[in-house]
Amino acid sequence: MGINLTNFLSSKSKNTKMIDFQDLDHIDGISISVVSANLYKDIRDDLTMFYFRDGANYASVYTQSKIVSENIRWNINQKPKKIFSLIVNTRNANAFTGKQGYESLKKIADITAKQLNKKQEEDEENPKKISNKNVIFGCTGTIGETFPYEKISKNISNLVNKIRYTQNKFIWMKAALAIMTTDTKPKLAMEECKIGNETVKIYGIAKGSGMIFPNMATTLAYVFTDATLSNDILGKLLKKNITNTFNAISCDGDTSTNDMVTIFSTNKVKNSQIKSVNENKIRHFDMSLNSVLLNLAKRVVSDGEGASKFITIKVNKCKNDLEAKKIAFSVANSPLVKTAVAGEDPNWGRVVMAIGKAGPKINLKKLLIKFGNITIVESGKLSQNYDEKLTANYMKGENIEINIEIFTGKKSFTAYTMDLTKKYVEINADYRS
Amino acid sequence: MGINLTNFLSSKSKNTKMIDFQDLDHIDGISISVVSANLYKDIRDDLTMFYFRDGANYASVYTQSKIVSENIRWNINQKPKKIFSLIVNTRNANAFTGKQGYESLKKIADITAKQLNKKQEEDEENPKKISNKNVIFGCTGTIGETFPYEKISKNISNLVNKIRYTQNKFIWMKAALAIMTTDTKPKLAMEECKIGNETVKIYGIAKGSGMIFPNMATTLAYVFTDATLSNDILGKLLKKNITNTFNAISCDGDTSTNDMVTIFSTNKVKNSQIKSVNENKIRHFDMSLNSVLLNLAKRVVSDGEGASKFITIKVNKCKNDLEAKKIAFSVANSPLVKTAVAGEDPNWGRVVMAIGKAGPKINLKKLLIKFGNITIVESGKLSQNYDEKLTANYMKGENIEINIEIFTGKKSFTAYTMDLTKKYVEINADYRS
Repeated sequence: MGINLTNFLSSKSKNTKMIDFQDLDHIDGISISVVSANLYKDIRDDLTMFYFRDGANYASVYTQSKIVSENIRWNINQKPKKIFSLIVNTRNANAFTGKQGYESLKKIADITAKQLNKKQEEDEENPKKISNKNVIFGCTGTIGETFPYEKISKNISNLVNKIRYTQNKFIWMKAALAIMTTDTKPKLAMEECKIGNETVKIYGIAKGSGMIFPNMATTLAYVFTDATLSNDILGKLLKKNITNTFNAISCDGDTSTNDMVTIFSTNKVKNSQIKSVNENKIRHFDMSLNSVLLNLAKRVVSDGEGASKFITIKVNKCKNDLEAKKIAFSVANSPLVKTAVAGEDPNWGRVVMAIGKAGPKINLKKLLIKFGNITIVESGKLSQNYDEKLTANYMKGENIEINIEIFTGKKSFTAYTMDLTKKYVEINADYRS
Repeated sequence: MGINLTNFLSSKSKNTKMIDFQDLDHIDGISISVVSANLYKDIRDDLTMFYFRDGANYASVYTQSKIVSENIRWNINQKPKKIFSLIVNTRNANAFTGKQGYESLKKIADITAKQLNKKQEEDEENPKKISNKNVIFGCTGTIGETFPYEKISKNISNLVNKIRYTQNKFIWMKAALAIMTTDTKPKLAMEECKIGNETVKIYGIAKGSGMIFPNMATTLAYVFTDATLSNDILGKLLKKNITNTFNAISCDGDTSTNDMVTIFSTNKVKNSQIKSVNENKIRHFDMSLNSVLLNLAKRVVSDGEGASKFITIKVNKCKNDLEAKKIAFSVANSPLVKTAVAGEDPNWGRVVMAIGKAGPKINLKKLLIKFGNITIVESGKLSQNYDEKLTANYMKGENIEINIEIFTGKKSFTAYTMDLTKKYVEINADYRS
């Protein structure tokens, strides 16, 4: 375990002095509270509330599983203009819990709205009217167990009592820790950027290891910005940037019933209005959002269950995007490739196998495969300069890059995954015991 | 390891007194010779010749990988009416060996044809003229290493010298052992059946563990019969029966460049002519061929790398065959389901997850899931009679059956796989070292 994350940090980030974690601090308009609702047997935080005192614009992408958790159903059914609270619990996925799970969320949303309205009356000059529709949920944990309504509902007042209007790095870290399940590390990322002349922040936290596969991808990721952006623009930006970030990662090819990525904007920075994602003014934000999402997605992969190595698979010169993606994921999801990497074995034959079974036609006479900068296969043959010792030495690193050129066109796709270790099996064979 | 294979034996088999292995004996028209060509570092047989003194009719199905081994290319390029020899080597897959690999096979086929012609002159009243086109190859082992032409070619005379015209159980077992790679057990199966009034034999051997996935499926399987059947009829029977046998198994979702299933008929039993696979006369043979293929396919799965449990996934009441197959393989290929079975954890939530991500629409209000005869989910809810202890006890068995009813139609598909254990990772991370 313990993949070095240094190289995930964007060079554009201000906090490059931090190696593993960036310091997320205050974003106007967000309050974070974290408690232990005793959902686990051990002492740990497991229930988190994000509160937007003036409401937040938002957009979500959800799992594409045909069976979705009750909280995803709840979130999809509410269509408020603004979100006032996101509540995230761990230990229980609220999936396959049926009416009990859904009704529990409704009641918790009722309680939350009621208590937040009281809070608004106390703290705000112009108190907003919050309804249960302004509350959405993230749930993660075991599928099919009764949703712990009692434990969660009785902790809403504790969460509300903990609301403070200034945030710092400790509370972000606490939240990132509280949403973890089998994760070994909290996942945080940040960027600052300009919209016109205004500087805005983009902060994100995520959890996830295991059940990571595109369409969409990770378990949970929440991104927050103080920019002023409409629901429509947020939705377009999120959709655009999810493809090569959270939809480009794979740990074990399994997909959760609960996957959810949401972006919230508190509209506290009065940047100039954005009417289209193609405007030049939004370009810097667009790129920075991509950095935050990719940073989080890579952290999810590098913490993939039992991971000892981070694998980047770059597929270039394909006929179209879909073929590039198919080949990249065929390699990324191959247990034989992933175990070879775990064993530090430069078994390029398995990469060839995975390219071959992907489906798209290959120009075998031109096919190029490199491990890092080391050319393995060129013009469809084992390179005359192939040096097994050199390559074996490369495989000892923590970051393995597999570069593939197909020579049927001009399109590319990069997928990210980790190796398949004995530890993965250990974690997953013991999960519930 | 060591899954009990008793239940794989067809009840129609004559040899039910044998538990793990059936006795394959003599089939007219086939000679088997086995040698050690020193392809491995250890002492073991690694080169096998099947010789058909009067030629055999035949049909093959090959891997659907877009990158195929040189022996598959050779086999596809030859289109003789009859095959006189099949030569199988282990240790080297002859994949990604390019011209060296292909030319080696051509030269070996030349040598083989020459020596078999000499043998024909010596032994036969009416010697047949054998050309290199009458020789096909099975190769299995590591991809991308130079094909060991010297070692194999100089052993052809040894193989020819060992030709005997009566076969027994020892030589079949020897051949089944000689074609193994990481297999822990040889794989043999047999049936006897009637075509009209004539009794015919169907014998088969197979190898394979790891890289087992449909389209098509196993590594290598060879089936032999003394029936008189044309190439056309053999092809149709093989295609028909591969769907729910070798194309219904999955070990790790990977597909080889070398997969090959071939059926040979020596035409020694003068059964009445079969012109169509729909004729009533061929029904018994059809079913028996299915039994032999399924028996071999199950043996391949049960010997899947690191397997400790055999898993049968039956998906019923689907809209169409494709949807049933998608759901069955989504469950069969899920690392989370497979590790749960390894851990003897009745984690039905992961089965739900795998059904959900498969793609086809699910009738959630009716969905039924059983482990063996134990109802887990009914009418889309956890069964009121669900007994975790009872189910946990069921998971301790070696044969786990997951029964799923989707309630969108009438179609079914059954997939076979094994659990995912630490041993799997161990075997595959160490393969080449």
